[in-house]
Amino acid sequence: MAAKNKVSETVIRRLPIYHRIISEVVSKGIERISSQELSKLTGFTASQIRQDLNNFGGFGQQGYGYNTEALKQEVSEILGMNHEYRTVVIGAGRLGTAIADYEGIKNSGFKILALFDNDKNKVGKDVSGISILDIQELENFVKSNKVDVAVITVPKSVAVDVIYKLASFGIKGIWNFAPVDVSVEGPVIENIRINDSLFKLSYYLKNND
Amino acid sequence: MAAKNKVSETVIRRLPIYHRIISEVVSKGIERISSQELSKLTGFTASQIRQDLNNFGGFGQQGYGYNTEALKQEVSEILGMNHEYRTVVIGAGRLGTAIADYEGIKNSGFKILALFDNDKNKVGKDVSGISILDIQELENFVKSNKVDVAVITVPKSVAVDVIYKLASFGIKGIWNFAPVDVSVEGPVIENIRINDSLFKLSYYLKNND
Repeated sequence: MAAKNKVSETVIRRLPIYHRIISEVVSKGIERISSQELSKLTGFTASQIRQDLNNFGGFGQQGYGYNTEALKQEVSEILGMNHEYRTVVIGAGRLGTAIADYEGIKNSGFKILALFDNDKNKVGKDVSGISILDIQELENFVKSNKVDVAVITVPKSVAVDVIYKLASFGIKGIWNFAPVDVSVEGPVIENIRINDSLFKLSYYLKNND
Repeated sequence: MAAKNKVSETVIRRLPIYHRIISEVVSKGIERISSQELSKLTGFTASQIRQDLNNFGGFGQQGYGYNTEALKQEVSEILGMNHEYRTVVIGAGRLGTAIADYEGIKNSGFKILALFDNDKNKVGKDVSGISILDIQELENFVKSNKVDVAVITVPKSVAVDVIYKLASFGIKGIWNFAPVDVSVEGPVIENIRINDSLFKLSYYLKNND
């Protein structure tokens, strides 16, 4: 089911949370759920939840609530999780290899084809069966393997350069772990800000005493 | 500077973003900034920004804006980044070792004292000078070293058990990478949801075509 209209960034940010919560509910064998119950689990208001899901057609029923399995499928579909994204990981350091080996990424439709690094000691090795290739081969590999997505785990100092190159190779999406903000024509860039989460923890530690 | 009143979760979620943006502005040598300019950089409205920062005393000046260096210091202080948190990492797999080796964590006041694992092949080794200890020693270590914070990178199947144990040992904060939702008396728990970010990317990939 496609969005009827342009959906706001804040709604999109809540969708993965709906997906996670509903998946947990389904895994507990619960077959239906009201927006009030979803409100308790998510912390959003019931009317906010109904409004959010209405953006995509609104598949709840008055007095019944939502069928959890159907809702999970719909939200998965909205999130594009039933697609396959041909993915490479740039940087075969600790973070890059952790990601290549991460179940959560494979189970979400991101198929990791290869890792890339400029370290000759790493090139030629593999991570759980996924080869580490020379960064020099990146352009050729992206084009001949129709790669959709790149995960950036290289140091800050080279990340901007790598992102510009990937954009010029025609990549569609970038999942960026490097602490840089890059705006470039072409790919969708999703920045993951590990430090933002760490700082939130720090705030609560300080203010909980 | 401490918060005057109870600050809402949504404001706290924006604070790390202010910190990141202001740090970038300071690193470019810009000495003052208006809430309008901050609005362009953060995507929040100028009035939202003024309101957020007012929660902590409001250190902007009408017609001048904010002194960037002072604002960075204030936001750092609000976020508790000038404290030192004695930290351990539970799980010495790829993610745990990546975190132990991550500059961003060390620069934010989280001092990593040790990693813990139940794998005898890992115990006794080290990661960039930080020892991997036997998980059996965790209780003793936490108590005798006055550990404040634990980072959870163990598999989902054991994460809940580890979090309950840490709570009973008197830990103050938990930075949880495992995909579990645990509510336990005592520590502040900050869950980092890598998949939420991945699903957002997936959404945009699907809806950008």
